[in-house]
Amino acid sequence: MSGSLIVVGLGPGAPELITPEVTAALAAATDLVGYAPYVARVDAAPDVRRHASDNREEIDRAAFALKLAADGRRVVVVSSGDPGVFAMAAALFEAIESGEPSWRDLDIRVLPGVSAMFAAAARIGAPLGHDFCAINLSDNLKPWTTVEKRLRAAAEADFVIALYNPISKARQWQLEATFALLRGIHPASVPVIFATAVSAPQERIDVVPLGDAQPDRANMRTVVMIGSSQTRIIERAGGTRFVYTPRSVGLLS
Amino acid sequence: MSGSLIVVGLGPGAPELITPEVTAALAAATDLVGYAPYVARVDAAPDVRRHASDNREEIDRAAFALKLAADGRRVVVVSSGDPGVFAMAAALFEAIESGEPSWRDLDIRVLPGVSAMFAAAARIGAPLGHDFCAINLSDNLKPWTTVEKRLRAAAEADFVIALYNPISKARQWQLEATFALLRGIHPASVPVIFATAVSAPQERIDVVPLGDAQPDRANMRTVVMIGSSQTRIIERAGGTRFVYTPRSVGLLS
Repeated sequence: MSGSLIVVGLGPGAPELITPEVTAALAAATDLVGYAPYVARVDAAPDVRRHASDNREEIDRAAFALKLAADGRRVVVVSSGDPGVFAMAAALFEAIESGEPSWRDLDIRVLPGVSAMFAAAARIGAPLGHDFCAINLSDNLKPWTTVEKRLRAAAEADFVIALYNPISKARQWQLEATFALLRGIHPASVPVIFATAVSAPQERIDVVPLGDAQPDRANMRTVVMIGSSQTRIIERAGGTRFVYTPRSVGLLS
Repeated sequence: MSGSLIVVGLGPGAPELITPEVTAALAAATDLVGYAPYVARVDAAPDVRRHASDNREEIDRAAFALKLAADGRRVVVVSSGDPGVFAMAAALFEAIESGEPSWRDLDIRVLPGVSAMFAAAARIGAPLGHDFCAINLSDNLKPWTTVEKRLRAAAEADFVIALYNPISKARQWQLEATFALLRGIHPASVPVIFATAVSAPQERIDVVPLGDAQPDRANMRTVVMIGSSQTRIIERAGGTRFVYTPRSVGLLS
């Protein structure tokens, strides 16, 4: 029996954002592996085995999935968003590199998904329409000095910045420190977008100027996007607005 | 009659990477607007009007689509990949801001898609698994000095870099200049991924060290990804390999 391991991205939440490719992989799985809330999102046949694990156990989870695949199971590892963006795919390859040599020759594939930041951007307009960076704000896996260096480099070069994992119960001060750092580089008027639970029933999107941005608008389901100096707001009737970053900069028009 | 305008991302090419949300929007359209090859990719009913335009006419195309929507048509503007990433969404909002005031209150939505860079990353492993930047290498819409500044900032802060529009018939020297600039910052061993026509029959993915990277491996359908100093290669049987960037950096293990 020949096993396989597929890492899939379920998108930000809504079923209509799951690609047909991922749906087909899920339908062929014998085993689902992942963080419990993501495994619970999958509508699978009763005989499919669900292996739900806690958060922050990515390497153990990946090694477990590899063992199942080596035993001949058709394993699907579920991530939210896109699996290659601060999610399970990198953890899987870390486990492969440090694990059994035979694991690297298993049938292994990664299937892309709609990322949280692109779903969030689409909801509000096109804030990532020009050059941008994605930074994981967690300092669990890198020193805070590295995060600061990257934030400063990105803002000084006028990238739009998307922040993943902006806050958690154990990390409370980092987002405020980020806003303070960016206020030293950007005008206070630069738009900050807090996009929470995008495409889920609890979806909430707030746009505030950098000068007024407070970390308590974010939670573990929030992507924070900080505009560049060029990012613009279009006011609409009814108090709603679009936020976008033009494609051009610094040219005579 | 109430019109609408929806900007959709068709993903990188394969139909199984189009979200059900986009498929539903296409099925309800009366008019399709976009760059000719993307409009041609849509399998629409015979009575749907197709308005295909040339490349580099984004603002005119957006204004045309807005006029159709204002006239009561159900318009879908098609982009490849994700529409918010160097594609039609930003052009649309530029046209809205500079156009008829009534346009901003039309029923306008952006639907995300699977971006070219995430599809490319998934095919080779997880090269974007840590902090990364996306840079449009075209200097049609910004000065080359701005591109250089961003490349330098991104490499010095050790972001992985994804380059969109790396080369065209009219822009031949910029990609070589990019590699030369990055060789002054990164070791020659840093992996460079040339991902061309991902998910299409012509798909080709090459991985070469930065020291050997030549621009002739890229064409207009290529996304180029340059690793950070941490990006790793896993060799597999049969000469294939995975490329990934670990989630952690700079911590004692």
